[in-house]
Amino acid sequence: MGDGERELSRLESRFEALWPIPRSITGPGFRESLEILRKDVPLDVEGVPSGTEVFDWEIPPEWRIREARLTGPDGDVYADFDETNLAVVNYSESVDERRTLDELDPHLHTLPRLPDTTPYVTSYYERDWGFCLPHETYESLPEGEYHAYIDSEFVDGELNYGHAVLEGESDREVLLSTYLCHPSLANNELSGPLVLTSLYRRLRDWDRRKFTYRFVVVPETIGSLAYLSRYGAHLRENVVGGLVLTCLGGPNDTLSYKRTRRGNALLDEVVRHLDEYTDAEFRFRPFDATGSDERQYCSPGFDLPVGQFARTVYDEYEGYHNSRDTKSFMGIAPLVESAETIERVLRNFERGGYYLNQNPYGEPMMSKRDLYPTVNDPAEGDGVGPDGYADGDRDLVTDMMRLLNYSDGSHSVVEIAEQYDASVETLAGPIDRLREVGLLEPADYTPDHSDRFELPAEEF
Amino acid sequence: MGDGERELSRLESRFEALWPIPRSITGPGFRESLEILRKDVPLDVEGVPSGTEVFDWEIPPEWRIREARLTGPDGDVYADFDETNLAVVNYSESVDERRTLDELDPHLHTLPRLPDTTPYVTSYYERDWGFCLPHETYESLPEGEYHAYIDSEFVDGELNYGHAVLEGESDREVLLSTYLCHPSLANNELSGPLVLTSLYRRLRDWDRRKFTYRFVVVPETIGSLAYLSRYGAHLRENVVGGLVLTCLGGPNDTLSYKRTRRGNALLDEVVRHLDEYTDAEFRFRPFDATGSDERQYCSPGFDLPVGQFARTVYDEYEGYHNSRDTKSFMGIAPLVESAETIERVLRNFERGGYYLNQNPYGEPMMSKRDLYPTVNDPAEGDGVGPDGYADGDRDLVTDMMRLLNYSDGSHSVVEIAEQYDASVETLAGPIDRLREVGLLEPADYTPDHSDRFELPAEEF
Amino acid sequence: MGDGERELSRLESRFEALWPIPRSITGPGFRESLEILRKDVPLDVEGVPSGTEVFDWEIPPEWRIREARLTGPDGDVYADFDETNLAVVNYSESVDERRTLDELDPHLHTLPRLPDTTPYVTSYYERDWGFCLPHETYESLPEGEYHAYIDSEFVDGELNYGHAVLEGESDREVLLSTYLCHPSLANNELSGPLVLTSLYRRLRDWDRRKFTYRFVVVPETIGSLAYLSRYGAHLRENVVGGLVLTCLGGPNDTLSYKRTRRGNALLDEVVRHLDEYTDAEFRFRPFDATGSDERQYCSPGFDLPVGQFARTVYDEYEGYHNSRDTKSFMGIAPLVESAETIERVLRNFERGGYYLNQNPYGEPMMSKRDLYPTVNDPAEGDGVGPDGYADGDRDLVTDMMRLLNYSDGSHSVVEIAEQYDASVETLAGPIDRLREVGLLEPADYTPDHSDRFELPAEEF
Repeated sequence: MGDGERELSRLESRFEALWPIPRSITGPGFRESLEILRKDVPLDVEGVPSGTEVFDWEIPPEWRIREARLTGPDGDVYADFDETNLAVVNYSESVDERRTLDELDPHLHTLPRLPDTTPYVTSYYERDWGFCLPHETYESLPEGEYHAYIDSEFVDGELNYGHAVLEGESDREVLLSTYLCHPSLANNELSGPLVLTSLYRRLRDWDRRKFTYRFVVVPETIGSLAYLSRYGAHLRENVVGGLVLTCLGGPNDTLSYKRTRRGNALLDEVVRHLDEYTDAEFRFRPFDATGSDERQYCSPGFDLPVGQFARTVYDEYEGYHNSRDTKSFMGIAPLVESAETIERVLRNFERGGYYLNQNPYGEPMMSKRDLYPTVNDPAEGDGVGPDGYADGDRDLVTDMMRLLNYSDGSHSVVEIAEQYDASVETLAGPIDRLREVGLLEPADYTPDHSDRFELPAEEF
Repeated sequence: MGDGERELSRLESRFEALWPIPRSITGPGFRESLEILRKDVPLDVEGVPSGTEVFDWEIPPEWRIREARLTGPDGDVYADFDETNLAVVNYSESVDERRTLDELDPHLHTLPRLPDTTPYVTSYYERDWGFCLPHETYESLPEGEYHAYIDSEFVDGELNYGHAVLEGESDREVLLSTYLCHPSLANNELSGPLVLTSLYRRLRDWDRRKFTYRFVVVPETIGSLAYLSRYGAHLRENVVGGLVLTCLGGPNDTLSYKRTRRGNALLDEVVRHLDEYTDAEFRFRPFDATGSDERQYCSPGFDLPVGQFARTVYDEYEGYHNSRDTKSFMGIAPLVESAETIERVLRNFERGGYYLNQNPYGEPMMSKRDLYPTVNDPAEGDGVGPDGYADGDRDLVTDMMRLLNYSDGSHSVVEIAEQYDASVETLAGPIDRLREVGLLEPADYTPDHSDRFELPAEEF
Repeated sequence: MGDGERELSRLESRFEALWPIPRSITGPGFRESLEILRKDVPLDVEGVPSGTEVFDWEIPPEWRIREARLTGPDGDVYADFDETNLAVVNYSESVDERRTLDELDPHLHTLPRLPDTTPYVTSYYERDWGFCLPHETYESLPEGEYHAYIDSEFVDGELNYGHAVLEGESDREVLLSTYLCHPSLANNELSGPLVLTSLYRRLRDWDRRKFTYRFVVVPETIGSLAYLSRYGAHLRENVVGGLVLTCLGGPNDTLSYKRTRRGNALLDEVVRHLDEYTDAEFRFRPFDATGSDERQYCSPGFDLPVGQFARTVYDEYEGYHNSRDTKSFMGIAPLVESAETIERVLRNFERGGYYLNQNPYGEPMMSKRDLYPTVNDPAEGDGVGPDGYADGDRDLVTDMMRLLNYSDGSHSVVEIAEQYDASVETLAGPIDRLREVGLLEPADYTPDHSDRFELPAEEF
């Protein structure tokens, strides 16, 4: 079995383990899911107690769900948590009541536009209860008295997240974040964590990492807020680029990149560059204040240069947030393709940044480092002349000279490459040669932040 | 009589009172005119003594004119100050001489291109005297001895201006300036002060004013210089936008906006934005070092972000600076239209600026402020689902999220709106909601000034 | 004989004197050549001892060549230094050996693409020896034993350069640099120094020089490095613009401008402006890290705003670096044209920069300086009215007002001119008038440098 097959098989097995778990933003289902991811990524799991204030929010109690069932006057069960996690509104409070259909109606959720499909509904921050069912079932419900039964509990516990760090040459960090809170949704939920495990394993095996990589798995929104409340100051100081991973499977061929809030951060430039100057292809979405956890990472007080990758994007497919978002819709192979492409982006993010010429006063003497032909002979261009001093490396020399001239810490390799109509990938060789002989070193790179918002000391 | 009719009637009555007064840049005619404006605007009137140095200039003496008459050999009067203020060169010295036509010729001013029209001529800064008359009259003057008689006086007095302030929530100011020195010119003179009175009354009645508004009435050029010599340091510190008002009547349908010296100040952007994103239409003129008092406000040592509004623009109509510039040419109704449009611009200047998200670390929790649906149900888009949780406000929520995300003091609402192809006017509701719940506050906004010119302490 | 003929004759005579000298990057040939240039430019000649470290490089020993001859088995001489300097590889070590053709082959250099032409080959930094000959000669060489004879010597001496300064009103400098090291090449070598002499004589005769001009003659690469190692800190502090002069003759009609590293320095803008707004025409090349001494001046540690002018550009003509680059190819008349055009560029570089309005608070009073008509009469445009107050200078006044308004040290005259669709040349008159009356003074102008590289104190 080759590497590719092994990866497919590993992802398939993780998927099967994760799928049935009744997850929510807090509680045992989330912790159990993190344990499964820990088979691949050595996540540290931390907790924030219920009731803790995180910025404008408060950590909700843990929700524990045991049973949920809607039984009709005919004894038939019309919504059953045992059959699908989606049957009950996530974060429903307990109920054990007999109601007529009219009395029940405000608690029934359906999707009229897809009559055979069960929607995914939540009510985290206001106590409520409800059942989700196909609209065609809803329309055929017989009159009479129903038994609404939900056995759930809210307990003081904690919100959990997991994170792991792969160290690199520099303390500057790349943040890779995904969420893990929706139960029984494939593309919209499990694709992100699964691709994250692939990326961890790939980056772990790189020969060298210029940056440090931080892998984060949170419940969406409240989880990234909690993470920022603990690590936001560190992230604001160190993150030079980041990605939220979501919806990375499904039928679409092309990865879709949602730009960072700045729109022209180095990461944005690298993805655009790969699209324009290599065979890689991307769709692009502008930044917007809607979406996933980039809403928190890119909030104005943090303004991290975090983009988002998706493939079959939320809100753009009819199976979004309903029972059609299954493993067969998502597929496993697309996850591997997503991981491969994102790995390529990250490689070029490392290459495409800022360097410092270590000998910036005049040109370095290339020939004493065997980087230049020692005899200047105009036979160049003719291939090998009768003198034997071939000059096949002249393009390499030119590339090195250009890199050296512009590597003053304020021109990125993306800019240098494009100035000469080349791609960052073709400059990988010259960069490596120059680093080997000590003429080029990465420049430290801190993104600018608005100075309007000082981080509040008490939060950290 | 409705509001509109009342405004027309008020402006008509003020026009009739102002028209016959023999005004100049100093003297009793200017003071008398200010008194008429004080019926509508509580102007404080201040004076700068004759002989005072203002920057590179000196306040001239007051000019007092009693009589001026050119009598021919036949006893006919060919130019008569009693008939029109324009008959005498403004700031003429006294004369009581008998001259032949040849000797007189250097003192006669006509407009050959409009033979039936009397030009408006001044000689403020060099002693001279003269008469203005239609060219056709000039050409039919009989030979013989003429009596040139001007009874005028130069006395030490003062230059006057009037100003009034409408306070707002912020000390940051909007400057509205117009001039009042030409006698018997309608569009080129009285339209500006009359529109200023309408704007004062309109802005006085606003529910809230974000900015403080300063209304200034000066004699052109020397008056704005004098005003700057007293208030320039304050203006440079506080003015975030301003307008010179001139030529606001006449046959043209569209207001013409002359950009500020910077060309891309917030005010410039707001007018451009209204033109591009709403039903408002404007003509645009680039900044130039010719024109009206914006030449002084935008001189490099002050560099205030002051634009200019005109309708039938000086230099672009044949009646400019001559006896064709009458009330019937100007009209009263166009003044009301000008005031309405400028009021709209100012409303959007207030809205379109910079705000600060008061909860910039992560998203604010919208649902606890009733700004967000508490149940997340994918039925959105279908209108009201069977669950009763309609989501008709989702666009409002999106607009609020966008405003919050980008309100970091460095993105104007104009920029935020255009990023999402919306107009500032459509964001008025979301801005108001966010201000009500305390999530958004105006950011303090000081325009940058060139630091090459420190204000000379002795001037202020 | 007119000035033009005298210049042609002077250049012709200098060419004839310089052509036969066996020059290299060091040694007596270079010094002898500098002496010839000193007839026109009072160059100070300085030396840097062999073995001195200059940045990453080391000054090589002086090369002294006496004889070089390749004699065939038939007694024929196939390459002879007495006939052409190009016959021997520049910096060849001594040799006195008998070799077969096969053994000799690695030391023979030809140009297969131009079989009748001798190439120019050097080996400065690795000991080697060789002969250069036409490829057709090479192909007809008889089998047998050859006598390779080179009588040369490497001695501790010095590398030399010459420089001269023409002082101006300001210490800010314009650098004009050319190289003088290739023997017996006309366009590629002697055109630059010859044009430099013309420019020196022209600029010396200007009525006033706003800037100080520095004329530098070096051996290429190692010479500019040596010059920077002595004067780099001074240049970085003072150079506001500069030009490398090379290849300024030949058949091309148009001067080709290679932009500075910044691409938008004031000098770049001036050349672009002349091309767009006047009858001057240029070709443009982007900056590249290949070329002549601008590679050193524009290295990131110095980043001087230095461009390059060429006419028939190196690498673009088949006679480049070979025996076809003769006086008849180069011509003398094109050198005069080049000098004229570059002089025009420099005049406009002086005019086109930054000025400071000396009376920036409000407009200056123009009439008290006789810069403005004292009577404002609308007859303007009709030419002279009956009043005798013509207004033919109104355009001059407008130009002066525009210059004054924008002369705040941050708008160049290039920008001001283009804002009003005018050329810098048409503003020469208004600038002069305003300087005469003391209203305008040149602003000090230091180009920004990257602050990533501090100049190493020990080098200077």
